[in-house]
Amino acid sequence: MQALAKDPAARGLKDDAAVLPLGDDTLVITLDTLVQGVHVREDEDPADIAWKLIAVNLSDLAAKGAAPTGVLISHMLGEADDRFLGGLRAALETFEVPLLGGDTVRAEGRRVWGCTAIGRATHTPVPDRRGARPGDAIYVTGTLGRAMLGLHDRGSGSADDLAYRRPRPLLAEGRALAPLVTAMMDVSDGLLLDASRMAHASDTRFEIDSARVPAADRARADECMRWGDDYQLLFTVPDGVEIPVEAARIGTVREGPAGLWLDGRSAGEDKDLGYRH
Amino acid sequence: MQALAKDPAARGLKDDAAVLPLGDDTLVITLDTLVQGVHVREDEDPADIAWKLIAVNLSDLAAKGAAPTGVLISHMLGEADDRFLGGLRAALETFEVPLLGGDTVRAEGRRVWGCTAIGRATHTPVPDRRGARPGDAIYVTGTLGRAMLGLHDRGSGSADDLAYRRPRPLLAEGRALAPLVTAMMDVSDGLLLDASRMAHASDTRFEIDSARVPAADRARADECMRWGDDYQLLFTVPDGVEIPVEAARIGTVREGPAGLWLDGRSAGEDKDLGYRH
Repeated sequence: MQALAKDPAARGLKDDAAVLPLGDDTLVITLDTLVQGVHVREDEDPADIAWKLIAVNLSDLAAKGAAPTGVLISHMLGEADDRFLGGLRAALETFEVPLLGGDTVRAEGRRVWGCTAIGRATHTPVPDRRGARPGDAIYVTGTLGRAMLGLHDRGSGSADDLAYRRPRPLLAEGRALAPLVTAMMDVSDGLLLDASRMAHASDTRFEIDSARVPAADRARADECMRWGDDYQLLFTVPDGVEIPVEAARIGTVREGPAGLWLDGRSAGEDKDLGYRH
Repeated sequence: MQALAKDPAARGLKDDAAVLPLGDDTLVITLDTLVQGVHVREDEDPADIAWKLIAVNLSDLAAKGAAPTGVLISHMLGEADDRFLGGLRAALETFEVPLLGGDTVRAEGRRVWGCTAIGRATHTPVPDRRGARPGDAIYVTGTLGRAMLGLHDRGSGSADDLAYRRPRPLLAEGRALAPLVTAMMDVSDGLLLDASRMAHASDTRFEIDSARVPAADRARADECMRWGDDYQLLFTVPDGVEIPVEAARIGTVREGPAGLWLDGRSAGEDKDLGYRH
């Protein structure tokens, strides 16, 4: 990652959607990969893997305020392909997005799935993680840590279980927020790590008050802020702007040096902040 | 593949680019995956893998007559990432296509790379493999089997070596042909297998005369027609149409039943015809 990040040819290589003006439209394009044993558990139900593959890519579109026009998937064939298809069909129907194409791959060993989602921006400039300004309010949607709790409650059908197995991309929320935000991204790798990334990308200091962060389990609030897979939206708006979606104000953007501060102290380096892959 | 092919949710899942009308434009979008040990050798130079990743996706655009606007890649980090980047940079510069984004993935075991290429159609309707009609002439560009010969000549810098390690997508040729062809695809899995697929997709019989197929090694002509990785263009045009690129006429499209005939006999089922993955 370090070598890649330094290289000019790889500057575009970050975990974010690409924005491509085209005629009167602006396209938003994602490419995300799920690796067995890294992003999904070894024993994950293929139906849930298919759902997640679609959901995480649409979540990238949501953070850009984009409306999905279609997806392509790359599926490594293996066990229970029928279950994979069932989950794929359910996700496509639920999110009302067509499968445009893709390919299938045959290989032994660890399985990998790829997905590209294409959407049209509903507002330009398209939000990214670089625009937060000193004085802005920091918000996050939903409750963090549900997916973490769901991991230990799998198959129960509880809200936590579904948060882990069947995440919902916040497409409507992203579209409603796009015209208002100064910066926005989805929280895929944990609130603290993603907030730190946004702070660095915006060259500002993010001051977050942990007591304000909606945690699924108060007793494990710190874990809830470090765990990934919640797919909530983290965003900043100028102070005083009214927010059209349910979200909690968790802090304020300040002048740099860039970094994340938690409860009045530096939260440390990215490597200490959450789940990385 | 069979289960996938039968399912409505997976109808879009074929090894082909997706076509997406958008405003005044028509987008062409590919998603191709390379798997270590399947599509690239275990000991392949990462620089060549990066090149091939870009080239095979652009070859899908070429077969659609599309002009590339950018690529996204998914790179599984591992050994010699600097060499991967070198090959990536070389391919992007050579084909004059920008890297729009993508992600990096960290995982043990077999490595996998994904790429999405986005292009704009230069001619509509966009060519596909379904349009061949009885009476059409069948053509293929270039010489088949070069990549096969290059596999045993690796690193020599010979034309065959470069055909294997550094394939060139026929973008200019694809654009020149798009307004003229009734069907077109790139030959990635071997001429016979891909011709059979086009015959079935067009519900016609493809009659190919093996003596007319330009083979890199006459003594191994049969192997040359079954080996993949050449990335030439296979296309059909109405009889008598003048071809603006160098290509060999190798046969004629006839009324069905659908299938491939070689030298006056049925060439058999797809499973016998070439290299599949």
